[in-house]
Amino acid sequence: MRIGIVGGTGDIGEGMALRFAPFFDVIVGSREKEKAEASCGCSIDMLKKRGTECSLTGVSNQTAVDDADIVILAIPFKTLGGTLETLQGFENKIVVSPVNPMEKRDFFEFVPPPEGSAALMVQRMLPKSARICSAFNTIAANKWRALDESLTYSVPVCGDDTAAKRQVMEVVNRISNLQAFDAGPLAVSSLVESLTPLLLNIARYNRLKDVGIQFR
Amino acid sequence: MRIGIVGGTGDIGEGMALRFAPFFDVIVGSREKEKAEASCGCSIDMLKKRGTECSLTGVSNQTAVDDADIVILAIPFKTLGGTLETLQGFENKIVVSPVNPMEKRDFFEFVPPPEGSAALMVQRMLPKSARICSAFNTIAANKWRALDESLTYSVPVCGDDTAAKRQVMEVVNRISNLQAFDAGPLAVSSLVESLTPLLLNIARYNRLKDVGIQFR
Repeated sequence: MRIGIVGGTGDIGEGMALRFAPFFDVIVGSREKEKAEASCGCSIDMLKKRGTECSLTGVSNQTAVDDADIVILAIPFKTLGGTLETLQGFENKIVVSPVNPMEKRDFFEFVPPPEGSAALMVQRMLPKSARICSAFNTIAANKWRALDESLTYSVPVCGDDTAAKRQVMEVVNRISNLQAFDAGPLAVSSLVESLTPLLLNIARYNRLKDVGIQFR
Repeated sequence: MRIGIVGGTGDIGEGMALRFAPFFDVIVGSREKEKAEASCGCSIDMLKKRGTECSLTGVSNQTAVDDADIVILAIPFKTLGGTLETLQGFENKIVVSPVNPMEKRDFFEFVPPPEGSAALMVQRMLPKSARICSAFNTIAANKWRALDESLTYSVPVCGDDTAAKRQVMEVVNRISNLQAFDAGPLAVSSLVESLTPLLLNIARYNRLKDVGIQFR
């Protein structure tokens, strides 16, 4: 299975690529192909030193969409709309949004777009045949990158296409100790996306770092 | 410390009373005092059979407010406003809202009042000197009552009055294995209250029961 990461050289994307590459063919996209190639070179070296075989290729964001079975939009909310406007070819693709629309004012707030959530905005912007899911919303960039630490978290996954959602949940369950939970249709994404500002507030007010969640 | 539970004979309130009574003087309020007395009689018997000493008194909702240091509003959102209109004497009291404004449509949705959250609505309705916190939002009624099970959950606590919030967090940390986390000012309550519809969706779509959360 080929996983394309749009924004694959960013904070979250780079760590995701490191975690996914031992299990899947990972295509790391960036606005600048050269940046993606350099990032993949470093990641391959890092994984090799750990004795881990991997499949990682640096490409443009558009190629990451074109060549992938599952496309992950690893971009901040503020550049989500602009980035999607520059890309095409999402027809029939599984598209995963880990995007959280939030702002830091006096505290971290959930500030959704008019559609109600980032995932629903993605759905509105992409072709009708694109199979949108939300997943990976609550895992901090530092945790993705900390390969010596296991990721022992619950991952709620939303989506309206049952087969697509099942495939995304299988991907989740391959990575470290992540456990996927079906959180229902895509419209539930607002409840999932609002977890992250809560977790950032919890971290801030309790002087913790990179707080995640488990359902139990 | 005297803890008054408004709605103390309801689904959540009765279980809370059972869990709190070994550690605090618990005043169980109900619209009908007789119902509160009967409920407390049963609870005292149940705890005695387990060899647990406790302090539990059945009273009216108004007396539960009047005689308590900390008042917990263990009532559903749909009767919250109506109940608060019948009560007075909240001046300078610590008032805890575990209330979650939500509805079950195709799935469980967060449906906040115009104030943005149940806790902020409580703040608007009560006197300025009342010290409102939100806490205990995500613990299921069945779990409160299941005395043989430990409550191993995280409890986010919001509030603008630091001393009140600290006292509520101390109460949380006395109960079973609950662990309080400062989630910030009262305005963060919407993020906390929207956890519960998410957890209900998680339970529903994964055929689980009474799902709770842990931060880690």
